Amino acid sequence: MAGSISLVEGGTVTTPQGFQAGATFAGLKTYAEDKLDLGIIFSEAPCTAAGVFTTNSIRSPSVTVCQENLAKGPVRGLIVNAGIANACVGDQGYKDAQQASLLASGHLGVRPEEMLVCSTGVIGVELPMSLIEAGIEKIQLSGDGGHDLARAMMTTDTRPKEIAVSFEIDGKQAHIGGVTKGSGMIHPNMATMLAFVTTDAAVEQGFLKSTLSDVADISFNMTTIDGDTSTNDSFIVMANGMVGNQPITEGSSGAETFKQALKEVCIHLAREMARDGEGATRLIVVEVEGARDTADARKAARTVASSNLVKAAVYGADPNWGRLMMALGRSGAEVDEAKVDLFINGVCIMQEGRPIPFHRDAVVALMRSPEVTFGLHLNLGEGRATAWGCDLTEQYVIINSAYTT
Amino acid sequence: MAGSISLVEGGTVTTPQGFQAGATFAGLKTYAEDKLDLGIIFSEAPCTAAGVFTTNSIRSPSVTVCQENLAKGPVRGLIVNAGIANACVGDQGYKDAQQASLLASGHLGVRPEEMLVCSTGVIGVELPMSLIEAGIEKIQLSGDGGHDLARAMMTTDTRPKEIAVSFEIDGKQAHIGGVTKGSGMIHPNMATMLAFVTTDAAVEQGFLKSTLSDVADISFNMTTIDGDTSTNDSFIVMANGMVGNQPITEGSSGAETFKQALKEVCIHLAREMARDGEGATRLIVVEVEGARDTADARKAARTVASSNLVKAAVYGADPNWGRLMMALGRSGAEVDEAKVDLFINGVCIMQEGRPIPFHRDAVVALMRSPEVTFGLHLNLGEGRATAWGCDLTEQYVIINSAYTT
Repeated sequence: MAGSISLVEGGTVTTPQGFQAGATFAGLKTYAEDKLDLGIIFSEAPCTAAGVFTTNSIRSPSVTVCQENLAKGPVRGLIVNAGIANACVGDQGYKDAQQASLLASGHLGVRPEEMLVCSTGVIGVELPMSLIEAGIEKIQLSGDGGHDLARAMMTTDTRPKEIAVSFEIDGKQAHIGGVTKGSGMIHPNMATMLAFVTTDAAVEQGFLKSTLSDVADISFNMTTIDGDTSTNDSFIVMANGMVGNQPITEGSSGAETFKQALKEVCIHLAREMARDGEGATRLIVVEVEGARDTADARKAARTVASSNLVKAAVYGADPNWGRLMMALGRSGAEVDEAKVDLFINGVCIMQEGRPIPFHRDAVVALMRSPEVTFGLHLNLGEGRATAWGCDLTEQYVIINSAYTT
Repeated sequence: MAGSISLVEGGTVTTPQGFQAGATFAGLKTYAEDKLDLGIIFSEAPCTAAGVFTTNSIRSPSVTVCQENLAKGPVRGLIVNAGIANACVGDQGYKDAQQASLLASGHLGVRPEEMLVCSTGVIGVELPMSLIEAGIEKIQLSGDGGHDLARAMMTTDTRPKEIAVSFEIDGKQAHIGGVTKGSGMIHPNMATMLAFVTTDAAVEQGFLKSTLSDVADISFNMTTIDGDTSTNDSFIVMANGMVGNQPITEGSSGAETFKQALKEVCIHLAREMARDGEGATRLIVVEVEGARDTADARKAARTVASSNLVKAAVYGADPNWGRLMMALGRSGAEVDEAKVDLFINGVCIMQEGRPIPFHRDAVVALMRSPEVTFGLHLNLGEGRATAWGCDLTEQYVIINSAYTT
């Protein structure tokens, strides 16, 4: 059973003990208002760490360097840049990612393999290493630098997305802090999403890795903005153990609480990422119940949340539930039309496959809320899943038709 | 080897001998300017017929009735309505579809199972059968009624899409005519697409069926507008044999010419459907070469053509080729980044995975054409495929955020 978990007001990745962060404007993110574009997270003590990364077969060499360095043992931190994705630039990309970890580690007095490297932004442009080198020199780390770091990761995000929670372990107060950026090119299986989670709890490597993967599957991997999966998606957790607890392992007393706290942090970040999707005015929550199994529930929830027609209907506050049925039907999940119940923000719209009369104006008014929840009960089994998305607006089109020009 | 195939100026589904068509306003399509909304195609002689239908597991009972009637033997024609999809209405939908074929066949003096039924439009609303009954009575069939029929199928289409070609078989002049409607909810594996093809050639049933399926795979199934697959997609071919040729069979002398003519008709209709996608200003053509195999080439072409980010870049005439690479990478096709060559309207943008300098203004100017072609050479094998799509515009969002309201 999980112990109690509290939200830390104004919390971020530097809320856990021993984590510092800082950011600067290196000159990469010239298109956004917020000009911070290069940041570092650093831990005073070596961290057990794990990551999950994009499934796109075209991937940034920054991702490759992260994977290599994670395999080499504990890490001390990461350097992240926004503005340039360091993807599709040939062999130079790998050299640049290695160089970035070398420069950051030199600045911090640690070994290069202890620094991870993350990039997000435009594809096909080389990292200007002289700007990055100069930028690293300017970065001042501090125990409350998490907010600046969160801003420095943003591309078309309209606001930073961060959270921290606290919980007790071995009678000591531990924390998990998290930060993410998203906005476009976001779809299940990791997107142009970067998410970093820090904790001052000690966590055994194998448990951290498997928990990370489980939690990614019910949080970031259930978020969709435009169906496009980026070359750079990375979700990294670093645990520095500064709380001094017995390292948490599978089945140990703190395991459930830790997992629950990590889940709360990641679901919060995933929801905020969907809510702040490019051009979005509303968060879409798709809750599937009664699917044949979890895999079916996930497929159904993700397909409905990512349907352009569903997303456009939400933008128009239009209870065009036929589109939910269409998307459900093409999801690949087993569906028996005659068993399906549909709900929009709790109002039953269809029961056992038949539309039932509803007060249209009331449902339209409900759909004008900042959050629209679709309930899909398939009544075939025990599978359930939730996906998060956002509406499709003219603004999405405007943002994405003039991104590099 | 295929014989020569000529375009028939102003051709449509009534160009082949013995086909008549007509349409009326029954009162179903109240949201569009063009008020024709109910049409019939009728053949003076019984037709060998075949169809391919939506793969959505939620499907209109109109589709079910088509499939049942096709299995019963030759058909004489079809009745089609726009405005209401006859989908997600419980058991009543099947009764209504049967009733529509009964009413149409009574009007025409044929058996109910000889009339197919197709519907397109809003999901979740029952067909108003009294309007349909009254509408059928008003329909006047004629040998040049194909154009009216094409208008009566339209929903958010901005123009009818039709074509006819002629070719010689057994020394006689035969024809194939085709009509389609598309616009939204269009994606590989049949969409809210209806496509009807007529021919006065005699074609053996088995050959017609397999040819139909082959041709669908390289035409309509390679068309994508918004990634959403409808509940009603139907592609139906009717061959009345009035030319008096020996029925065409696999390997017979006219088989190649017939298949080539059908292919030309369907690719024309598929392209026109993509070009007239909801809100579209440009046709996107994605030509994949050198994929490991055809399946990979198809996946790659379809994924790139349906990526929201690629579509938005095309709208902005923005040569943001990184998005092509992202979409290619997530397509599931085997990709070796270091081998990929990319072309935009013939201009090489990337060679062996490295961006090469190009004259940006010239490429932007090229992308302002009504048609943008992306060439993706994977250099891994012999697989090739072409997909058609359209750009993503504010107008798409506007149309689809206020469709039923």
